Amino acid sequence: MPFITLEGVEGSGKSTQMELLKEYFEARGIEAVALREPGGTAAAERIRAILLNEEGYGLSHMAELFLYEACRAEVVEKVIRPALNKDRTVICDRYTDSTIAYQGYGRGLEIKAVDAMNRLATGGLVPDLTLLIDLDPAVGLKRAFSRISKKTGAKEDRFEKEEFAFHERVRNGYLKIAGAEPLRVMVIDGTKEILSIHSDICDIIEKNGL
Amino acid sequence: MPFITLEGVEGSGKSTQMELLKEYFEARGIEAVALREPGGTAAAERIRAILLNEEGYGLSHMAELFLYEACRAEVVEKVIRPALNKDRTVICDRYTDSTIAYQGYGRGLEIKAVDAMNRLATGGLVPDLTLLIDLDPAVGLKRAFSRISKKTGAKEDRFEKEEFAFHERVRNGYLKIAGAEPLRVMVIDGTKEILSIHSDICDIIEKNGL
Repeated sequence: MPFITLEGVEGSGKSTQMELLKEYFEARGIEAVALREPGGTAAAERIRAILLNEEGYGLSHMAELFLYEACRAEVVEKVIRPALNKDRTVICDRYTDSTIAYQGYGRGLEIKAVDAMNRLATGGLVPDLTLLIDLDPAVGLKRAFSRISKKTGAKEDRFEKEEFAFHERVRNGYLKIAGAEPLRVMVIDGTKEILSIHSDICDIIEKNGL
Repeated sequence: MPFITLEGVEGSGKSTQMELLKEYFEARGIEAVALREPGGTAAAERIRAILLNEEGYGLSHMAELFLYEACRAEVVEKVIRPALNKDRTVICDRYTDSTIAYQGYGRGLEIKAVDAMNRLATGGLVPDLTLLIDLDPAVGLKRAFSRISKKTGAKEDRFEKEEFAFHERVRNGYLKIAGAEPLRVMVIDGTKEILSIHSDICDIIEKNGL
């Protein structure tokens, strides 16, 4: 069964598309496991909490990278491989490409080193298909902010210049990955409406015989 | 100022020797920073808690490795390098050799991969001197157990065969490291009395002009 990953900048709509894709598979009678990275096991959720608390601790970039890979090693061994072995379709919100894009292109860590760690963490498990929902991070961050502000009532939506520059590097990093692996990574226009993006994704799934 | 690490199996007396060594330096008017791995920063202590809770989560060996390296990256950047830059002597209870011995030789992960991660986590910071307190793990585990039982009142001191075999591989791994790097790693007889070991350590420190 296929292993599909969703990638993209903050606010690109990956989680929503993951849920719709899971329903699409289930409507076809295919059991699909949907999960998000980092997270997915008890230990991975605790590591995730350390990562999310980043501002509080001011984690070093290298420590951050190792923590993401620790989560990944856990979830590949405990969740993804067992599900694939049981002939389930696995859909994962973020995977190795996130680490290349964020820690490599975004934070400036050496791409070759990040790649080597990805291979160790996954034991070489590469997705059959990666859906990259491409979006200008200025749009994505606004969307992500409005989602947060609905929950918390926060009103401040200005972003630091450095933050934009970081997410711009992440987006360009994603596009470089897609350029280098055109058979695995499909770029999807993230400016479209939710259902229109979903329909683009279903077309890709069908064309790839998944 | 020198960067000194203490290594050895469980119950070899590293922590006691670290304290005595710190006092020895301070008696000579040398400011020394003593720390233990994993731990040493707020984030590293939280990661340590995940590692110690290992039985509860049953961490994968690869995730365990990444978590140790995350702690190390933190403590090198936040504690060890700043202290060395301030001309302080740093004494560390466990460092990269622990990961080679435990995760590499003990758990069977590829030594080359562990070594590559050590280099990434430390940015290439190698100790000036490593004191390996060598001890039969059968003796060390008994000592470590009696320390725990004094605290908890536990009476069970039988160890699983696999546990002994694991610690035996760790000890032999340590001795291989020492064999390969005789200028950096000094092997100390851990069967001696505490003050006798301390005296051996002081001799080594003086002979090395530290």
